[in-house]
Amino acid sequence: MIKIALDAMSGDFAPDELVKGAMMAVSVYDDIEIQLFGDEDRIQSLLTQPNDRISIVHTTEVITGEDEPTKAVRRKKDSSMVKAARSVKEGHNDAMVTAGNTGAALTTAIAVIGRIKHVKRPGLAPAFPTLTPEKKPLILLDAGANVDLDPEHLHQFAILGSVYAEGVFEIDNPKIGLLNNGTEELKGNRQTKEAFQLLKEEERINFVGNVEPTHLLTGECDVLVSDGFTGNIAVKTLEGAVKNVMKYLKTTLSEGNIQTKLGGLLIKNALTEAVGDLGEHKIGGAVFLGIDAPIIKAHGNSNDEAILNAIRQARTAVKNDFVQKTRDYFEQ
Amino acid sequence: MIKIALDAMSGDFAPDELVKGAMMAVSVYDDIEIQLFGDEDRIQSLLTQPNDRISIVHTTEVITGEDEPTKAVRRKKDSSMVKAARSVKEGHNDAMVTAGNTGAALTTAIAVIGRIKHVKRPGLAPAFPTLTPEKKPLILLDAGANVDLDPEHLHQFAILGSVYAEGVFEIDNPKIGLLNNGTEELKGNRQTKEAFQLLKEEERINFVGNVEPTHLLTGECDVLVSDGFTGNIAVKTLEGAVKNVMKYLKTTLSEGNIQTKLGGLLIKNALTEAVGDLGEHKIGGAVFLGIDAPIIKAHGNSNDEAILNAIRQARTAVKNDFVQKTRDYFEQ
Repeated sequence: MIKIALDAMSGDFAPDELVKGAMMAVSVYDDIEIQLFGDEDRIQSLLTQPNDRISIVHTTEVITGEDEPTKAVRRKKDSSMVKAARSVKEGHNDAMVTAGNTGAALTTAIAVIGRIKHVKRPGLAPAFPTLTPEKKPLILLDAGANVDLDPEHLHQFAILGSVYAEGVFEIDNPKIGLLNNGTEELKGNRQTKEAFQLLKEEERINFVGNVEPTHLLTGECDVLVSDGFTGNIAVKTLEGAVKNVMKYLKTTLSEGNIQTKLGGLLIKNALTEAVGDLGEHKIGGAVFLGIDAPIIKAHGNSNDEAILNAIRQARTAVKNDFVQKTRDYFEQ
Repeated sequence: MIKIALDAMSGDFAPDELVKGAMMAVSVYDDIEIQLFGDEDRIQSLLTQPNDRISIVHTTEVITGEDEPTKAVRRKKDSSMVKAARSVKEGHNDAMVTAGNTGAALTTAIAVIGRIKHVKRPGLAPAFPTLTPEKKPLILLDAGANVDLDPEHLHQFAILGSVYAEGVFEIDNPKIGLLNNGTEELKGNRQTKEAFQLLKEEERINFVGNVEPTHLLTGECDVLVSDGFTGNIAVKTLEGAVKNVMKYLKTTLSEGNIQTKLGGLLIKNALTEAVGDLGEHKIGGAVFLGIDAPIIKAHGNSNDEAILNAIRQARTAVKNDFVQKTRDYFEQ
């Protein structure tokens, strides 16, 4: 049985969507048990389909988006997030899912569970659907956990990302790219130039070279390595571009001539679906790689389906023993 | 009379589109003279509307996209680019327009014309149309000329960008933003955190704070300051997102059901126009700010209209005496 701790008080729609997601997950997968951490009465009233593989651990505090991460983790000892992490540390659960404050989740992961030996900095690795026919995911690492890094950190990220892509996304010999402002070997700033040399010499990964951010959606690689500042800039640029271009198209269509308006009505469903394809909910949450247990960070605005997907990801990570595989790499 | 040197052998469609652009420009503006630098015979044969405000300076060499910038500028003394720049340095022309190799253009600008006194690094400042109702431009500085910078360089870019927005785009009290991965004052990496403090204390600019790249198209500021690496990452992410989302939509519409296909046909023109709105050709070329004369770098794939717009930009820069205004700022 795979045991998952769910921070039921986390995210914008807590605890409702988290409880719903948990109920969905136990009905889809019969090899998982979920422990919900949060306000027992509220959770109990939402548990419309009780299941003996769902249990509740009552907690009295919640870490919010406004909390300063380090302080919150230190002071809110009885928060759903900290207690869920502690249950993983103590071996009662195998993995944890939270939709809470990213900084607090990272701090909790490091402080309560700890890093894998030899890993200098854990990285935040979300996966995005690309616009390839098979919608294959692109894993970006680091997407924002560490803003100031050295080339050696990027080298470690490449290994962490490679093991993750193989262990959790079940991609054979994953292609590792380095996010850079040009494809040639000598392109980039000091950091990417030095990281390129380290990755080129690393025989345990399938390094495909520099990848320009024009190709974020085209599936050139499976894992894209970056410092957290640059990765975050790329992710936010992408999100903003997709959102604003779609909004602009809708306005253009609704304000056009009669022909354009009619066309706009006819394609409405196809357009909504296409926008949906660009959403990342389907792929699951972001994972803190380099932490000594699978910690899945779902979006703050996760609905039940997104929570289900994050739980599915936690399940795959445990099933494939991905953390042990990561430890093995770093022991070498 | 405003005198403009045009590197007629530059870009993908040289010299044809450059000669056409020059003919368009002298017919639109009666206060400019254009000197075309390049192969005299070829240019002469393309000059279907001769004008006494267009002249030719014969050159025998061309700097191409494959040339290594520093070497090319040093060795190809008789290239159209270097000779055009020299004509500006020697006072025969007031400004220069080229659609050539960006690195070579920057090297030429620095080596032949030189920096404005006290300017540490010149920056490349393209302008993009935003998706605001009035399609107001966003000037990004630096978009790729300098990958490794210090916070003090960003401080100088903020001043250069402010004078440019005011002098060439005629924006009153332009809003200056700092490209960052979060809006709060304490967000960012070491570089942006330190730059924030310098910009906050700079009284000669209208600093509006950190701007996240989700807002590149929404008109939050007029000038966005960044190091060239990050700026280039943002620009390329944006370009790739717009291009790939549009391509994906077209595929979705053409492969949909009969209703979607019909709708797709009806909106075809509106869609093409909307994509056109996102193009940057209309706004003109990128300018090397901090160089002691207006040097406009048009896109490599510029057509006649794009060249006309770059010439228009050179004309405005000279008319408004923008370089002298920049010198004044840096003398203070």
